[in-house]
Parts: sequence; C-alpha cells; structure tokens
Amino acid sequence: MIPIVSIVGKSDSGKTTLIEKLIPELVRRGYRVATVKHDVHGFEVDREGKDSWRHKKAGSHTVVISSPMKVAVIRDVDHDADLAELRDRYIRDVDIILTEGFKRNNQPKIEVSRKESHQELLCTPKDNLLAIASDQTFDIGVPRYDLDDAPGLVDLIEEKFLKGKNQPRVFLRVNGAEIPLSPFVRESICGTVRGMVSSLKGCASPQSIEIHILPD
Amino acid sequence: MIPIVSIVGKSDSGKTTLIEKLIPELVRRGYRVATVKHDVHGFEVDREGKDSWRHKKAGSHTVVISSPMKVAVIRDVDHDADLAELRDRYIRDVDIILTEGFKRNNQPKIEVSRKESHQELLCTPKDNLLAIASDQTFDIGVPRYDLDDAPGLVDLIEEKFLKGKNQPRVFLRVNGAEIPLSPFVRESICGTVRGMVSSLKGCASPQSIEIHILPD
Repeated sequence: MIPIVSIVGKSDSGKTTLIEKLIPELVRRGYRVATVKHDVHGFEVDREGKDSWRHKKAGSHTVVISSPMKVAVIRDVDHDADLAELRDRYIRDVDIILTEGFKRNNQPKIEVSRKESHQELLCTPKDNLLAIASDQTFDIGVPRYDLDDAPGLVDLIEEKFLKGKNQPRVFLRVNGAEIPLSPFVRESICGTVRGMVSSLKGCASPQSIEIHILPD
Repeated sequence: MIPIVSIVGKSDSGKTTLIEKLIPELVRRGYRVATVKHDVHGFEVDREGKDSWRHKKAGSHTVVISSPMKVAVIRDVDHDADLAELRDRYIRDVDIILTEGFKRNNQPKIEVSRKESHQELLCTPKDNLLAIASDQTFDIGVPRYDLDDAPGLVDLIEEKFLKGKNQPRVFLRVNGAEIPLSPFVRESICGTVRGMVSSLKGCASPQSIEIHILPD
C-alpha cells in the first residue's frame, strides 16, 4: 500500500507552504508524489462556460479532460471518502501520498505551527504525530524541525516509509476493501492467476494482470 | 466494455450544445453518462493560487481534490491517450461515454453541422458515421436528425449500444490491454477466482473482486 503522511495544522499555520517544500525535496530524491486536499465547499469542474464545465452542468457523472501532459477526471460520489478509499480508488504509480489536512484519519502526521498564528498545537502524540514543523518548541516528546527544514523532514519520511519497503506486487480487493495478503497467499494467488491467464490466446507472457469481477 | 459515441464536427458547429441536450435525455432514461474532452492546450489544476494548484506546481505527480459530492484527480501522463485507454484507465460505473471531438479514433460518431457555419461535413460514412445532426441535408446515406432532436438521437444510441446489452461482469487486462473473453472463459475465470478468494479469512462471500498483479 502506498504510504500516507498528513500535513496538519491550525488555519493559516503554513500547511500548503510546507508541502510546497516537501514535494520538490522528495522529487529530487527520485520519489513520485501524490497530494490530496479535502475541499469541503466543493469545487468547480474547469472554468465556468468551458466545454467540460458545460458537460458536468448538463448532468455528466464523470468528466475526463485529456491532454498530452495531464489527464483530469472529475466524478460524482455519494459520500465523503476517507484517505484509504481515495488511495485505493484513485491513486496509482506513486511512492508516497502527502495530504493537506485530514486530521481525523489515523495516518501518520506532521503538524505545522507558526508562533505568529497560534501558540497551541492541534494534535497530541496520540494522533499518530510523527513530527512538528515549527518556529517554537513544544515539550510533548515529538521531534521538532524548523519550518523550512524540508531535507530533515524528508529524511524522516524516507526512513519511516520509503527505505527498504518492498511494495507487495499482488493487490486483492474484495467487496471494495483491500485484503492483506501473507507472502504465501500472495505467491499462491499469483501462481494460480498467471497460470490461468497464460493459457488464454494472446496472453502467453502475462506481466501485469488485472481482473475485476462485479456482482451479478 | 462501456460503449463510446463521439460527437464530432467542424469548429463552431455546436458540438457542446448538442452534448448538453443528449446528456439530460440519457440521464432521464436512467443511464449514467461520462464525457471526454480533448484539451490540446493543456489545462490548469484548479485556480491559480489555490492549494491544489500549488501542490501541482511544486511537482506533485497526482493531485486529488475530495469533497462530499465530487472527486477530482489530475495526474501527469507521458503521452496523449486514445479513447480506449482513457476508458480503460479512468472511467468506471457509467453506461455510456460521449466524447467531444476525437474524430481520428474509429469509434461510432455523430456529426453536428450548422448551415450558418459550414456547408460541408467533416466525416464521410467511412469514418463510422452513425448519424448527422444538422439543419441542412446531406445525401450520403447517413440518417439526419434535427439539431435539437435529442430524443431521436438518444433512441438511436439506445438501440445500437444500450438495449439488451449484457455488460460482461468479468474484466481482464493483461499487460495493460483488455482481453476479450468468451462466455465460457468468463465463467471459468469467475469460478476459479471466486473459489480461491472465498477460502481466505474474511472473504467468505466475495461479491466484487479485484486482483492486480504487477511485474516483478
């Protein structure tokens, strides 16, 4: 599973500014980063009056905008997804996910705090708080980094989540939930599926395989 | 596979306007619609200065914006995807895909033409042209509908692509390409995979199942 680290903090603490420093430092070290932002007010598809905006307005469930450099997909959902669901459904091919906010979820967090804005923290160590990025000290037993110490924070992220992690190469979701697989079960599923698929016409050397079975 | 119908036409022929009429007519009949638009000039993620725009600018490969009603995913790609790839990678849970443009792909097309803008068509019947929506007649053996005859055009789309189609409930992609499955193979894969998965802890009644195997 792709690791998630949330950058949390009170309003105007500098969450986006810190993320803007962490991303290039991670990219410089060869990692591919996804970011997630919660938008409680909703957001517009494209600009008012543009074609894809008009498609959505007319009732399209999913709007795709494709260009040679980027693809955007905007789709209706019927509930506010949590981070695990967002990761499982929408994010592939990245090494790490940074989120802005999402304090309530239980993933590891880095809290940003600026003396100028607030004197108290939002989180306690119980909130799975990895580190604090701040220009003031807090005596709560969590390491503190300077607000612009992106290299230090990325060292920590790398150490905890990125080094020597062998991503599982078999993913199984049943009824929408990811099922953890032991190495033995993983090997067994991989062998059965590869064997089954390689007997099909045109599939003699299956590398990546995806199977979706939907309810009747 | 989700059927694709492309709304094509010369510039300023009224493609978006026709799509704005087709979508609500399809939705009224109970279908879920996705639309795809090609944007050769690229597009911006969110508005300049907003948080998700700043994430992308800082080098994020994938940006997700989540709200209780909509989710947007914007990701980098390294080539201009064709329609089959866009469908296979990004579109789920809809009944039909309407595209604006994409003349060069070989999927079925409806050409829009307004006398006021152009006297000639963009397509010939060889381009897999299903119908023409126009205020002028063309003698090329393709049925013509009035520019605002959304019910007539949706009758045609429904007849050709939506009625009595039993969508396959098993999807298999090998090395990124969808593999067509005969009913027998579909049954066989379904039985094998359900059997294998239902023996795992917590998976006694598998409904939907997804398996991804990635290359070593």
